[in-house]
Amino acid sequence: MATYGFLGLGIMGNAMAANLIRAGFDVTVWNRTASRCAPLVALGAKQAATPREVAASCDITFAILSDPAAARETCFGADGVLEGIGDGRGYIDMSTVDDQTARDIGAAITAKGGRFLEAPVSGTKKPAEDGTLIILAGGERSLFDDALPAFEKLGKKNLYLGELGQGARMKLVVNMIMGGMLAAFSEGLALGLKSDLDGAQILDVIEAGAMACPMFKGKGPMLLGENYTTSFPLKHMQKDLRLAIALSEELGQSLHAASASNELFKRASIAGYGDEDIAAVYRVIK
Amino acid sequence: MATYGFLGLGIMGNAMAANLIRAGFDVTVWNRTASRCAPLVALGAKQAATPREVAASCDITFAILSDPAAARETCFGADGVLEGIGDGRGYIDMSTVDDQTARDIGAAITAKGGRFLEAPVSGTKKPAEDGTLIILAGGERSLFDDALPAFEKLGKKNLYLGELGQGARMKLVVNMIMGGMLAAFSEGLALGLKSDLDGAQILDVIEAGAMACPMFKGKGPMLLGENYTTSFPLKHMQKDLRLAIALSEELGQSLHAASASNELFKRASIAGYGDEDIAAVYRVIK
Amino acid sequence: MATYGFLGLGIMGNAMAANLIRAGFDVTVWNRTASRCAPLVALGAKQAATPREVAASCDITFAILSDPAAARETCFGADGVLEGIGDGRGYIDMSTVDDQTARDIGAAITAKGGRFLEAPVSGTKKPAEDGTLIILAGGERSLFDDALPAFEKLGKKNLYLGELGQGARMKLVVNMIMGGMLAAFSEGLALGLKSDLDGAQILDVIEAGAMACPMFKGKGPMLLGENYTTSFPLKHMQKDLRLAIALSEELGQSLHAASASNELFKRASIAGYGDEDIAAVYRVIK
Amino acid sequence: MATYGFLGLGIMGNAMAANLIRAGFDVTVWNRTASRCAPLVALGAKQAATPREVAASCDITFAILSDPAAARETCFGADGVLEGIGDGRGYIDMSTVDDQTARDIGAAITAKGGRFLEAPVSGTKKPAEDGTLIILAGGERSLFDDALPAFEKLGKKNLYLGELGQGARMKLVVNMIMGGMLAAFSEGLALGLKSDLDGAQILDVIEAGAMACPMFKGKGPMLLGENYTTSFPLKHMQKDLRLAIALSEELGQSLHAASASNELFKRASIAGYGDEDIAAVYRVIK
Repeated sequence: MATYGFLGLGIMGNAMAANLIRAGFDVTVWNRTASRCAPLVALGAKQAATPREVAASCDITFAILSDPAAARETCFGADGVLEGIGDGRGYIDMSTVDDQTARDIGAAITAKGGRFLEAPVSGTKKPAEDGTLIILAGGERSLFDDALPAFEKLGKKNLYLGELGQGARMKLVVNMIMGGMLAAFSEGLALGLKSDLDGAQILDVIEAGAMACPMFKGKGPMLLGENYTTSFPLKHMQKDLRLAIALSEELGQSLHAASASNELFKRASIAGYGDEDIAAVYRVIK
Repeated sequence: MATYGFLGLGIMGNAMAANLIRAGFDVTVWNRTASRCAPLVALGAKQAATPREVAASCDITFAILSDPAAARETCFGADGVLEGIGDGRGYIDMSTVDDQTARDIGAAITAKGGRFLEAPVSGTKKPAEDGTLIILAGGERSLFDDALPAFEKLGKKNLYLGELGQGARMKLVVNMIMGGMLAAFSEGLALGLKSDLDGAQILDVIEAGAMACPMFKGKGPMLLGENYTTSFPLKHMQKDLRLAIALSEELGQSLHAASASNELFKRASIAGYGDEDIAAVYRVIK
Repeated sequence: MATYGFLGLGIMGNAMAANLIRAGFDVTVWNRTASRCAPLVALGAKQAATPREVAASCDITFAILSDPAAARETCFGADGVLEGIGDGRGYIDMSTVDDQTARDIGAAITAKGGRFLEAPVSGTKKPAEDGTLIILAGGERSLFDDALPAFEKLGKKNLYLGELGQGARMKLVVNMIMGGMLAAFSEGLALGLKSDLDGAQILDVIEAGAMACPMFKGKGPMLLGENYTTSFPLKHMQKDLRLAIALSEELGQSLHAASASNELFKRASIAGYGDEDIAAVYRVIK
Repeated sequence: MATYGFLGLGIMGNAMAANLIRAGFDVTVWNRTASRCAPLVALGAKQAATPREVAASCDITFAILSDPAAARETCFGADGVLEGIGDGRGYIDMSTVDDQTARDIGAAITAKGGRFLEAPVSGTKKPAEDGTLIILAGGERSLFDDALPAFEKLGKKNLYLGELGQGARMKLVVNMIMGGMLAAFSEGLALGLKSDLDGAQILDVIEAGAMACPMFKGKGPMLLGENYTTSFPLKHMQKDLRLAIALSEELGQSLHAASASNELFKRASIAGYGDEDIAAVYRVIK
């Protein structure tokens, strides 16, 4: 049986590693703040002192770090993954990072004789705990296949999307659609309320029809209650819209609707709502 | 038990009247082409020769006609509803008509001593057969209450939305959101395909996440297969977007995203795709 | 020599009638508030008591009223133009009115045996005084030709644009371009100032190049000084943008850029700047 | 009297260098293809064999190269400017380059003890010949002051805009406004023609009013004649719109109208009109 490493035990990583351990896999964990390893060790994990150790001793090492800087440090830093990787062992970075970071890490791992996969996820805390994430992988195909037994404990949908970069692109495409849906929903709700329609009835009609979706079910009451408790920060959505538009410039795709939505999210960011939930785009619309 | 009339036995009306008959109600039917009454008579309906007769003899008369002209003719024409209505009997027009038509009919019915309700529906043939329409009613509240036993056989969601006009407005709001969602979805799919992502995988990811909805499930394969078999004609969606924008001018609501979507549907109409399905907006985007 | 009537002696009408009198024409004036006639009588005009009298006694009667209601009253009211017109005498309405008002007045005049021309103008007080208006005429060609000696004293550019309605359409087209230019200018200035460029230098560069125009020369310092003293009310511009978009729906012309500009002017209207100058669109952009 | 160098004798550079020589300045020229120096030598210029020689022997060296690659090669290449600059001598790059190129060149020149100014110009061949360019300078203020006697022979408007980068930003702002104006103009013209207005009359009305500008005078007949002979390539305008939008993301400025215009120019680029004149945006609008 393959041995797995897991780097980064934040909210997401902790839940994901626990799922692997509970499934009976041989898992070695590491976290910058070592104390976060204890509950997983109690579940049966081994603990390592550095990313280097993990990468050197496990067949496949997963990582989910908080941002590109942490992803780079964990790979390139002293006692980092790069010092331990090699001999065809795999490194799977599930952090959400920019294109350049993914490419830099991938190239370095490959140059050392390791295999690399980017695998950003769609889904937050609850799906991580339930093992129902959506995993969007790009890079070395054989590594995806080898990691499948683990992915199946983490996600309900595990997709290999092609070469390195395709995982990130899928995420942009999906988030761009989400941004457009939320802009349309917000404008519709605002128009409905100005028409003296009842907000709850509007949500009710949507919920009963072809547009019913978990997002509207979740965000609808937030908009009506003007409660923007953050689950997906608005500034990240605006960044994704910006990156999707940049991608469209490169690939030659017009995006009239997405550009208009981007300006709405941009205005919300400028107005200071960047750290609130994406639902706060409603604040500049209503 | 109340007696019901039903005028207009097209695809929608036929299915709806049949549901009322099967539920055991006393139903009198009429259709411009009388031969369409036979199957319903076989189910137990009475048949009348004119809308006047129906309106004169039934407590509540429902109508679902093909367009505003037919709705006006059935009400105002020789032997029309107006000649039979009165004494508090009810007339419920479920046709999708413009604001002015609804107001003209409502005012005339009321002046004759009848009660009036507009009740446009959301949903097409299948929900009509299954009795799972969404009914958006505006007008005389007491008539809505009296008609509820019938509505419950026709729709899974029967909403009284306020005074005359509110039913039509709800429909505009909902369709405007739908148009924006479809524009976002089309642009996202186009960008994804230009990124060399696999179309089926894009749909798969959406289907697995917070944006999963019957519309994307239905339209997704149509876009990928460039199959625009009409279920909701694009030109009607463009008309609804236009009317929603007109409403926004009156009520003072900015609609940056909906305006951009409207231009996309307008371009599709100009390009000659108005009679194809709303999914054909993709043709000017891809 | 033809005899001229002039109805409506507001800021525009007073200056225009004075130009006709000074040019030596035989002019009969009327105004709702009769006292406004005195200065023109002093210049040599005759005074009449009602629009009917003017229309009955002059070969060609000009009118420039404040709004559609005043234009209708002056034509259709008691002792109105309609009671005096006939025998091929001409009526030229230079008010800015909606399409329907122009058609209604035109049809009534023609039915009485008169000739009709709509002739809205581009230009405000100063050009009216200087006789340098731009006259956009639509309707009866022979009347345009007959009125040319008078037009030449009123405008520097007198255009016959075709049948009734074409004058109003030209005005929409021109104002739509103006709205788009002002939106672009406002966004550019705002971006420049956020870039720490000097506002006066930005205006200077524009003034020196291919985009130099009287509008930017006039509005530029207003934007920098946040002075929105009304010369062309913002709400009228927004109305023209709305009408231009409505025209585009009818004629099948996509207007992506104009729709975006319309939403900006709409937001400025909603924010309460409708009575300020069109330059106040900058207030929702900066 | 200061001695001047001039690198790059394309259409622009040749005309500009000639103006300096004719004004009586001491000018040393260099061009990659040396034969282009002859006419200027005939006018009185000295000729040098390399950029290094020019930069080493002249007080101030001007350059106007075709693109960022040529600008970099001329500075950083073998026998390039960098090898000759120092001791407070000045280098003024008038090429249109991206921000990073300008910064890289500026930093290298300064590190060698030279002074640097970016000075992109607004205007094409004719203004270059006539000495009526608009010069948008950013960088070392003392160098701008020292170069003023030369600038005065090249431009009718010579502006010092602040630190390095401000010249390029001003150009973006100005071109963004230009793109928006052209989009508005194109949509207006298209709507007018669909309204059966006469194209020449539309141009006439614009020419007579507050929007009259050299750009509309030049582009108007091009649009009507569907003649898109390149004076400013459309793809460069689209690039500038893209960069202006990128700048707006960084500075926090919403650009609803410019984003819509950008999508129009992008669609024109995608349709294959990138090498035609900016006027070809009309091809995707009409």
